[in-house]
Amino acid sequence: MWKTGTYDGDPRSQLRHDPVQKRWVIVASERGRRPVDFRQSAPSSGAERDCPFCAGREGLTPPTISQYPFNAAPNDWRVRVVPNKFPALRVEGELERTPAGPYDMVSGVGAHEVVIETPSHGAKFADLPVEQIALVLKVYRDRLLDLRKDTRFRYILVFKNSGSAAGASLEHSHSQIMATPITPRTVAMELASAQEHFHLKERCIFCDLLAFEHQSGDRMVWMDQFFATYCPYASRFPFEMQLYPRTHAHDYSLLDDDMLLKLAHHLKEVLRRMNRALDNPPYNFLLHTAPSTLSKSPRARWWETLAADWHWHLEILPRLTNVAGFEWGTGFYINPTAPEVAARYLRQVDL
Amino acid sequence: MWKTGTYDGDPRSQLRHDPVQKRWVIVASERGRRPVDFRQSAPSSGAERDCPFCAGREGLTPPTISQYPFNAAPNDWRVRVVPNKFPALRVEGELERTPAGPYDMVSGVGAHEVVIETPSHGAKFADLPVEQIALVLKVYRDRLLDLRKDTRFRYILVFKNSGSAAGASLEHSHSQIMATPITPRTVAMELASAQEHFHLKERCIFCDLLAFEHQSGDRMVWMDQFFATYCPYASRFPFEMQLYPRTHAHDYSLLDDDMLLKLAHHLKEVLRRMNRALDNPPYNFLLHTAPSTLSKSPRARWWETLAADWHWHLEILPRLTNVAGFEWGTGFYINPTAPEVAARYLRQVDL
Repeated sequence: MWKTGTYDGDPRSQLRHDPVQKRWVIVASERGRRPVDFRQSAPSSGAERDCPFCAGREGLTPPTISQYPFNAAPNDWRVRVVPNKFPALRVEGELERTPAGPYDMVSGVGAHEVVIETPSHGAKFADLPVEQIALVLKVYRDRLLDLRKDTRFRYILVFKNSGSAAGASLEHSHSQIMATPITPRTVAMELASAQEHFHLKERCIFCDLLAFEHQSGDRMVWMDQFFATYCPYASRFPFEMQLYPRTHAHDYSLLDDDMLLKLAHHLKEVLRRMNRALDNPPYNFLLHTAPSTLSKSPRARWWETLAADWHWHLEILPRLTNVAGFEWGTGFYINPTAPEVAARYLRQVDL
Repeated sequence: MWKTGTYDGDPRSQLRHDPVQKRWVIVASERGRRPVDFRQSAPSSGAERDCPFCAGREGLTPPTISQYPFNAAPNDWRVRVVPNKFPALRVEGELERTPAGPYDMVSGVGAHEVVIETPSHGAKFADLPVEQIALVLKVYRDRLLDLRKDTRFRYILVFKNSGSAAGASLEHSHSQIMATPITPRTVAMELASAQEHFHLKERCIFCDLLAFEHQSGDRMVWMDQFFATYCPYASRFPFEMQLYPRTHAHDYSLLDDDMLLKLAHHLKEVLRRMNRALDNPPYNFLLHTAPSTLSKSPRARWWETLAADWHWHLEILPRLTNVAGFEWGTGFYINPTAPEVAARYLRQVDL
């Protein structure tokens, strides 16, 4: 049935390729939503009494993948990782690449995990103690290292949706990890740009931009000895920020516990500034680290040689504006707040 | 000041280029929004008494660019085109291309117009008489033809934001036209794919996909003698549709009045089906027609030779899901409704 590009009700997700826009889409059939399912637009469930992420309700989620501390009693964890109950991609099954008429399809093999960042329901991520934030950052590292062992995965994305306008379906502070069998286009584009720059100049493009932003200062939000956060020159969204290690480093998973504690301090600072300046906006953050280097495909090994040109970073995206027809039609974005103005507000905020 | 990539408070918009993602952003300084401006999140103003688009309130908008019928009394128009009061790009000024440290900047020259689709406040676009819809479609054609005379513009996008979740700031039925001094990345990508296909096969890629969708039928929503609308194989969004002329045609502006009336019938049909199936969802539509062919730049003339490989189409995007961290981090989309399922609902809807 796939051969003619039709949908036969197979419950597995599919990755489908658009031959004109050369864009991949995950058709997540398990989430299969009919028209009526969109009518009751679901705001974040804020109800603490039903929350499956609270301590003591471990039975309401799929079985634990890992918890910290490792030896804690089942309801005494500080951070917990579980499979997503409605996964967009699943670990089970063969990775198949199939033609579908004039189109291309890859089976929806991957991983989709949830990191529950605290046992307490109401705590905001930026307000967690710095040691707790550092523990969450360690969990990201450990999950990256574990998921990379699965050679079917080309990329592992750590991201956070906070607030219903940013796509969070539950209020309890959490982030997500998805492993995909295809290198995402944003990652491929960043790799290609970094490689082009490196071939020409034998320097890292991210290091160059960071040096310029440091010197100019206009878009810098916060800088300490180890990390720097600035509003990018071509910010798509108002108050968008990018956080970089100041010393060249391609792979987040090489960070030691001490450096993760320093990162936790820095991240807490910039998120608190964002929350204060913008009155706790909905936001996303996402980690761009070097692609999985253990994959066995020759193409993936080619990526590996490029990893040294990469510079890991965290993108922080407050969700204050709507993406509308112009953006969908052009791929351009309209940002109503110059990043220099945004950075000034974020620097001057009174914490 | 631009030379160091800083913002000196110049009220003109800028197009800024991201050297890593190779993405353009419009920093619309005239809309300059401070943190406090985002706090009172503005839903569509539904208040008819304040609506600047209603007949009799022509003084509340910038001066008319054109009105239909041409000779109507000032408050007796059926469709009216005015400049956007808060334009992202402006017609005035030189088109300057400037380096800004390691970045690139183009002055925010362009056009940003509003098409007021009806004098009546409450009318939904899909419920307008078919002759009125045809008149709106004619206005699109006439504005395309007029704006193409300005050789600074590389592309002219016609689009509609309907409903506040789709980015509309006013409820009164309207669409927008933006002319940009840079060919948008989505358009460049479609041109490149079409050219690649044509070089290999001497056939139009859009004609090929349309033939496949016609034969398969699974994703077809509505087809008449002249037009076909289907849900794309790799739909990014649930219930996404694309409308194509069934005979190869690269340029929307070559349509005659008779064909525009036929298009109005078809468009009304599919929008009514969408409204019925999804209970009047917020939505965007956007017109992808061949790029302006009159531009004087050699690069633009290169595009012109490709125009024959283009096939104009209308993309219709109901806004039912949130774009969240995973999408921003990867450029992939997660669609919870298979397009085959969506098309079946849209075909079977009881009008």
